[in-house]
Amino acid sequence: MTAATRREHDLLGDRGVPADVYWGIHTLRATENFSITGTPISAYPHLIDALAAVKEAAALANEELGLLKPRKAAAIVEACREVRDGKLHDQFVVDVIQGGAGTSTNMNANEVVANRALELLGHAKGEYRHLHPNEDVNLGQSTNDVYPTAVKVATVFAVRGLLKAMAVLQDAFGRKAVEFRDVLKMGRTQLQDAVPMTLGQEFSAYAVMIDEDRSRLAEAVELVHEINLGATAIGTGLNAPAGYAESARRHLAEITGLPLVTAANLVEATQDCGAFVQMSGVLKRVAVKLSKSCNDLRLLSSGPRAGLGEINLPPVQAGSSIMPGKVNPVIPEVVNQVAFEVIGNDVTITMAAEAGQLQVNAFEPIILHSLSESITHLRAACLTLAERCVDGITANTEVLRASVENSIGLVTALNPHIGYTAATDIAKEALATGRGVAELVLERRLLPAEMLADLLRPEAVAGRGQALA
Amino acid sequence: MTAATRREHDLLGDRGVPADVYWGIHTLRATENFSITGTPISAYPHLIDALAAVKEAAALANEELGLLKPRKAAAIVEACREVRDGKLHDQFVVDVIQGGAGTSTNMNANEVVANRALELLGHAKGEYRHLHPNEDVNLGQSTNDVYPTAVKVATVFAVRGLLKAMAVLQDAFGRKAVEFRDVLKMGRTQLQDAVPMTLGQEFSAYAVMIDEDRSRLAEAVELVHEINLGATAIGTGLNAPAGYAESARRHLAEITGLPLVTAANLVEATQDCGAFVQMSGVLKRVAVKLSKSCNDLRLLSSGPRAGLGEINLPPVQAGSSIMPGKVNPVIPEVVNQVAFEVIGNDVTITMAAEAGQLQVNAFEPIILHSLSESITHLRAACLTLAERCVDGITANTEVLRASVENSIGLVTALNPHIGYTAATDIAKEALATGRGVAELVLERRLLPAEMLADLLRPEAVAGRGQALA
Amino acid sequence: MTAATRREHDLLGDRGVPADVYWGIHTLRATENFSITGTPISAYPHLIDALAAVKEAAALANEELGLLKPRKAAAIVEACREVRDGKLHDQFVVDVIQGGAGTSTNMNANEVVANRALELLGHAKGEYRHLHPNEDVNLGQSTNDVYPTAVKVATVFAVRGLLKAMAVLQDAFGRKAVEFRDVLKMGRTQLQDAVPMTLGQEFSAYAVMIDEDRSRLAEAVELVHEINLGATAIGTGLNAPAGYAESARRHLAEITGLPLVTAANLVEATQDCGAFVQMSGVLKRVAVKLSKSCNDLRLLSSGPRAGLGEINLPPVQAGSSIMPGKVNPVIPEVVNQVAFEVIGNDVTITMAAEAGQLQVNAFEPIILHSLSESITHLRAACLTLAERCVDGITANTEVLRASVENSIGLVTALNPHIGYTAATDIAKEALATGRGVAELVLERRLLPAEMLADLLRPEAVAGRGQALA
Amino acid sequence: MTAATRREHDLLGDRGVPADVYWGIHTLRATENFSITGTPISAYPHLIDALAAVKEAAALANEELGLLKPRKAAAIVEACREVRDGKLHDQFVVDVIQGGAGTSTNMNANEVVANRALELLGHAKGEYRHLHPNEDVNLGQSTNDVYPTAVKVATVFAVRGLLKAMAVLQDAFGRKAVEFRDVLKMGRTQLQDAVPMTLGQEFSAYAVMIDEDRSRLAEAVELVHEINLGATAIGTGLNAPAGYAESARRHLAEITGLPLVTAANLVEATQDCGAFVQMSGVLKRVAVKLSKSCNDLRLLSSGPRAGLGEINLPPVQAGSSIMPGKVNPVIPEVVNQVAFEVIGNDVTITMAAEAGQLQVNAFEPIILHSLSESITHLRAACLTLAERCVDGITANTEVLRASVENSIGLVTALNPHIGYTAATDIAKEALATGRGVAELVLERRLLPAEMLADLLRPEAVAGRGQALA
Repeated sequence: MTAATRREHDLLGDRGVPADVYWGIHTLRATENFSITGTPISAYPHLIDALAAVKEAAALANEELGLLKPRKAAAIVEACREVRDGKLHDQFVVDVIQGGAGTSTNMNANEVVANRALELLGHAKGEYRHLHPNEDVNLGQSTNDVYPTAVKVATVFAVRGLLKAMAVLQDAFGRKAVEFRDVLKMGRTQLQDAVPMTLGQEFSAYAVMIDEDRSRLAEAVELVHEINLGATAIGTGLNAPAGYAESARRHLAEITGLPLVTAANLVEATQDCGAFVQMSGVLKRVAVKLSKSCNDLRLLSSGPRAGLGEINLPPVQAGSSIMPGKVNPVIPEVVNQVAFEVIGNDVTITMAAEAGQLQVNAFEPIILHSLSESITHLRAACLTLAERCVDGITANTEVLRASVENSIGLVTALNPHIGYTAATDIAKEALATGRGVAELVLERRLLPAEMLADLLRPEAVAGRGQALA
Repeated sequence: MTAATRREHDLLGDRGVPADVYWGIHTLRATENFSITGTPISAYPHLIDALAAVKEAAALANEELGLLKPRKAAAIVEACREVRDGKLHDQFVVDVIQGGAGTSTNMNANEVVANRALELLGHAKGEYRHLHPNEDVNLGQSTNDVYPTAVKVATVFAVRGLLKAMAVLQDAFGRKAVEFRDVLKMGRTQLQDAVPMTLGQEFSAYAVMIDEDRSRLAEAVELVHEINLGATAIGTGLNAPAGYAESARRHLAEITGLPLVTAANLVEATQDCGAFVQMSGVLKRVAVKLSKSCNDLRLLSSGPRAGLGEINLPPVQAGSSIMPGKVNPVIPEVVNQVAFEVIGNDVTITMAAEAGQLQVNAFEPIILHSLSESITHLRAACLTLAERCVDGITANTEVLRASVENSIGLVTALNPHIGYTAATDIAKEALATGRGVAELVLERRLLPAEMLADLLRPEAVAGRGQALA
Repeated sequence: MTAATRREHDLLGDRGVPADVYWGIHTLRATENFSITGTPISAYPHLIDALAAVKEAAALANEELGLLKPRKAAAIVEACREVRDGKLHDQFVVDVIQGGAGTSTNMNANEVVANRALELLGHAKGEYRHLHPNEDVNLGQSTNDVYPTAVKVATVFAVRGLLKAMAVLQDAFGRKAVEFRDVLKMGRTQLQDAVPMTLGQEFSAYAVMIDEDRSRLAEAVELVHEINLGATAIGTGLNAPAGYAESARRHLAEITGLPLVTAANLVEATQDCGAFVQMSGVLKRVAVKLSKSCNDLRLLSSGPRAGLGEINLPPVQAGSSIMPGKVNPVIPEVVNQVAFEVIGNDVTITMAAEAGQLQVNAFEPIILHSLSESITHLRAACLTLAERCVDGITANTEVLRASVENSIGLVTALNPHIGYTAATDIAKEALATGRGVAELVLERRLLPAEMLADLLRPEAVAGRGQALA
Repeated sequence: MTAATRREHDLLGDRGVPADVYWGIHTLRATENFSITGTPISAYPHLIDALAAVKEAAALANEELGLLKPRKAAAIVEACREVRDGKLHDQFVVDVIQGGAGTSTNMNANEVVANRALELLGHAKGEYRHLHPNEDVNLGQSTNDVYPTAVKVATVFAVRGLLKAMAVLQDAFGRKAVEFRDVLKMGRTQLQDAVPMTLGQEFSAYAVMIDEDRSRLAEAVELVHEINLGATAIGTGLNAPAGYAESARRHLAEITGLPLVTAANLVEATQDCGAFVQMSGVLKRVAVKLSKSCNDLRLLSSGPRAGLGEINLPPVQAGSSIMPGKVNPVIPEVVNQVAFEVIGNDVTITMAAEAGQLQVNAFEPIILHSLSESITHLRAACLTLAERCVDGITANTEVLRASVENSIGLVTALNPHIGYTAATDIAKEALATGRGVAELVLERRLLPAEMLADLLRPEAVAGRGQALA
């Protein structure tokens, strides 16, 4: 062993650890065992902060219950706060996709906090006889309650970011709904001309969709506030004294500012991934709606000359390396792709949840990874869509109005007045001859001209639907 | 045309329809166009009943608003009640997977109701000048509000059946949790021996899982009570007079006994499949948990001699065509398969929802089909699992107790008393030598015998977890 | 027990079986245990025929090896042929989704064949001392080799039907490719106008896609010809004498006319579902392409006035219960839905395959069900699409030509002659002013008029791509 | 603009680009537009190398056809070689998930190559009048042929790495199959004791599975050798002169050493993602098998005392932060998670492929991302599993032998000798009483002792299955 390493010991024997790092032998072995993605857990800052918060809460609870000396507790708490301040994030080096149900992530946290606390207490890193990663930092805990709890706290904060981004996008759509409230257009069902509506109604629907999804997401994230801290290995609370679970929960709630609750049945809570499956299912719902909205935006802006050409997306980059002047709907396209990713992640999370066996689910690391990816990518997608696309959308008002006046669909408005059979005949003739519906109705004396004019006022036709969110 | 057919007319021309059927030309064409599954919509009785309820509610609303003469309305109402009594279900013959956003299903309903109403009024089938499928039965309606509304009403009733079946299964697990409350066993994490618990705790966890899932499902079905009746083609309410949407909703709520509400924004509601995606996501959650529970049951009952052999599932059939005496866990196995089906259906529903374009989703028929299949199969799976498996499970109490006494995992209970490092050494030696943990602790004088005995009382070890739901 | 039942015995005890049915006590218990779908295996005629073929082949092999007396063998063979003639399909009554790795399906076959063979030998049903379902009909077999072998044979025949249907669809697209070979249109990338092409090229691409998918499907079905008959319970061939596997394979190949091969490693083959996963993956590929093609058809035929309106799909039914004259793309829509179903089924099959444990996969029944559904629905979808849609498609030639002449995309053709930068400027101005590209090029004297005219000949522009499959 | 930037121009106007970077204005805008993942395309080195190879091949083809002056061509070629030597990878900065069908990736490549080539020609970066990213580097190309071609070349190289890793894993399983060839054990079906086999057969099956998957993967990657270079925008080859496609293909084949072929129908090839869907489907198959194998390894090594305990996985890290001495199957667990990820990615790729519209698929960037992730993670998983787990597996030979001698399953071997009914009775009694099968057979005088002894020799029982791959 050279001067540049320190010697550490575990179940499998001794190993040299670089002298200057805060992580220890368990982390070292984990980095050797898991090299799948190359992405360390430090790439998930919400998780690192949450882990530190859990360790801090546990130390405070242990001190409160007389299990940890105040001096040790204070050092652990201080070390955790430094982590939460972002000072030691680079010491969280294990690969995000790992075996062991998150053990390596928990061990990494225990070692970093212990070694920093040792320094704060005036000791060298690795002098675990003074303060031990497992016996002190992990006191009263198990990976099986620490890791799910940290993942939940991290998820809550990540989802808050997503909810804000969705609100930004909702507002963007909402502003367009107001801007386009008087723009008449043809509504379409099954891509066929249907009946008139306003472009404002169309954008209002997008805003309302997101509003509903925000409500669903807010409900789903409520479930993620239920933690199993104090469950220890399998939910029986072995090695966690009476009062520990409640004290740790209280401290964690204070540190994070979250209204956390302890699950009523800790055995169930320790093996269960239901809240993650539910969350992912709702994220998938959000993805489905976003993708549908983007499909619409791309379709409505198709053209410029051989497409629908109803709206214009703001150009944000040249669209082609070969076709000069071409501008593509690149922002909706990137959002579509995020949606496909989120839907795939949902399958991954589903399989990982289903594969849990007996008292614990060993596959939470991939759940964390996939869930984090879905949340953060959706957040970026919503902001990108709002700011680089929706805000700059303009309407081709004249094209839209002409499509209404030229439509067969207007005949539907006459249905209650002339009957379905007569209306069908008119539509058929208009279609066959290229003539207008109004013209034919008058020619056949099916309605007086004044009544027809009134019925065909597009504003009247479109009027009964809700225009705004 | 022979005497056995009647002549009907539509947009495409004339066709002969068998004289004795209640459906008409639109249904005829639909049966010719769609022959994918061979399964008619009559296989979905909740849907047929819901369609009839919608038609009845619409007729009452139309009568109330003076749009439909009382005599016609009464005949339509009577015909709908006959459908809901199951008298005409065999007339709903279009294939469940169909193009057209459900138009053919709606047309089938319009025609059956119209022709039965005609008979009630003393006319022959097909004499639409007296009462017309579209102009009277479908008055003020569109497929785009009728079909989603009917699918929602049908879903609510189907989910109620599932909720009851889940309660039956929860009770079955709950009874076993009580029965096995004093049966000690080793808990396992990552399939490795962990720490002791009771078999009652294990079954309690299954009961609690289902209880939680019931809550989630009950929440999800709430969302399905929001309907878009009155939206007509695209949500603008074209051709539905003021007051119609509210009146139709009120009548439908009365007929079905469901607290239905009309969506605030009908344009959004008409194109949106969010409630179905959410419902399917929750069904997938139920499937994931059921599958995990069944995986556990199969694992715990593995053997009889070369497996875990902790519990016995009741034998329900001979297990092998070749291995005499073999009995297999066929009931959990069939439940696993239903779970895989539900998870696959969720992908189908997701894709169908994402593919919606502009003002309507044309793919609701496959959503109906997949959702119905998931709900009814899960219901059957829950009842089958409860009645043919869980109710008859017995415990191999002695095998279970021996596994605790023989375990290395007991050392974890000593962790706070002798320290992680010493405990690790004990575990290592016990593992290497095959000796018992207690023996080694005493030999090394790490604890006095009395304290050890008390700490190792399995009841104490397992005691802090929640035993029952 | 009344006169209408006969008494049978199994591992669990005695039961009365209806006297007139060919199935026996194992089937009886299975119908009681599994009531998930309500769909009996008789709904899968390829499977019933394949089961009978396997039983027949086994009987011939057993006779050949001297294990079964010729009289018994002849009766079994005759009974199997009756099954394959469709005479006893209604006796295959167990639910398609069943636990037990297909045991109940195999038992159902053993019992039906045995009882019919007993009758042929002059005995009453149930007189198993003369000829026994397990000891004679199932001789040398196990569910674990019989069921996968039967599923594979059934799959091969089903896929042949799909391949034929795909050829029909390919031909339909191919005929349109020829018909539309001179119809110029704008090609689109990312829904934006790109460069000119012919409508024939567009349909040719659909034909080529299907042609490639047929090749892939033909490759995938090759793998399904590898069977594990003779493996018995776990692949060790226990109870199957030397020579049995080869003899049974040879007879099965003769009976079915298929070039079946026995897997080299029967232990692996007995637990493996790889060929089914591969097959489902290729079916998913077919579904993806079909869905994409249908999305295009719906888009190209959108309108009639406010859409692209490039092609017309043949009207096959009235499109709306409320909008007179509306015709919808119901055939492509139903194909889309089948595609979504197939993609969902692939997830189901994947999960079932992954869930196999140790020496056998218990979940092949859901694999059979999902795979059969995917194959038969795709077959119906291809035929429906060809015959009720593609064959009747017409082109709006003038609309298409105008879109080319009016396009900005023509400027791309000038790119190599005037440079990307100049071309970009032209495009920009044309877009801003609504003017034509050619006009601007001449105005700026970027090209002589003759050269421009030649370059802008749409035929020249479109000429280098492959027009036909 | 400060001295530290250079001014560039595009369709949207002017922007300052950092003076020292090789990318230009198109890349700048793309980095602003797409900030979803934070992962630049430089994280996909195979892709960067492939892009450079395509640009090099195109330059050589253009030179050959007289379209590009030798001096320019030489500079481009030299710049591309530097990229392929890894010198400029850090200049590929656009986000991997991007809108625009890969346009930004292509533009990034054009700009980097152009600017480096400019330097090589003695010009400053940005002096595009001497050598232009679009007019020279991208000459005769479009994103729509360059990007898919580069993705395919990159995929071929990535898959080669995976195939090698699979071979390593196959060998590891194969060596264990030899090592364990004489170790008897009970085979299990549906987790219930079935009939005897050898542990060598069990590991042989894993080796054979991988061998088959390697064959399937090798077939799938063949399809990826078909490229559409020369198709330009939509497959019509617009702006690519006669001979270009063939020349570019030839040069690309020489540069990469790959037997690339040009698709017969370029219009179809340009819009098609079939080869990627197929590849992903086969990767999913690999994932399914790997996951199943890892499930088995975890199950067989469960214990140490309350599990099956048949084999021991090598300990690679301490298993618990709380349970001393616990060692977990962390390596199979991480492989399971990669499998779940690959299966989820397959859904993402499927949706992206299905969403393609008309002449191009805009969503290939997410296909590239998901496919790369699946391939590289599977590669790492195979190597990790081989080297950190399979190589060190040992067998608990005595436990395994005892399980055979103690089993009920032995009775199956007697089936052909004493009949299924008698065998069933023996099994039932053995199970009920705990007595041995042999003992009961002798007691009932069903077989002479010598014959029984011979039949029950486990070697004979297990002998007929294939032992090795």
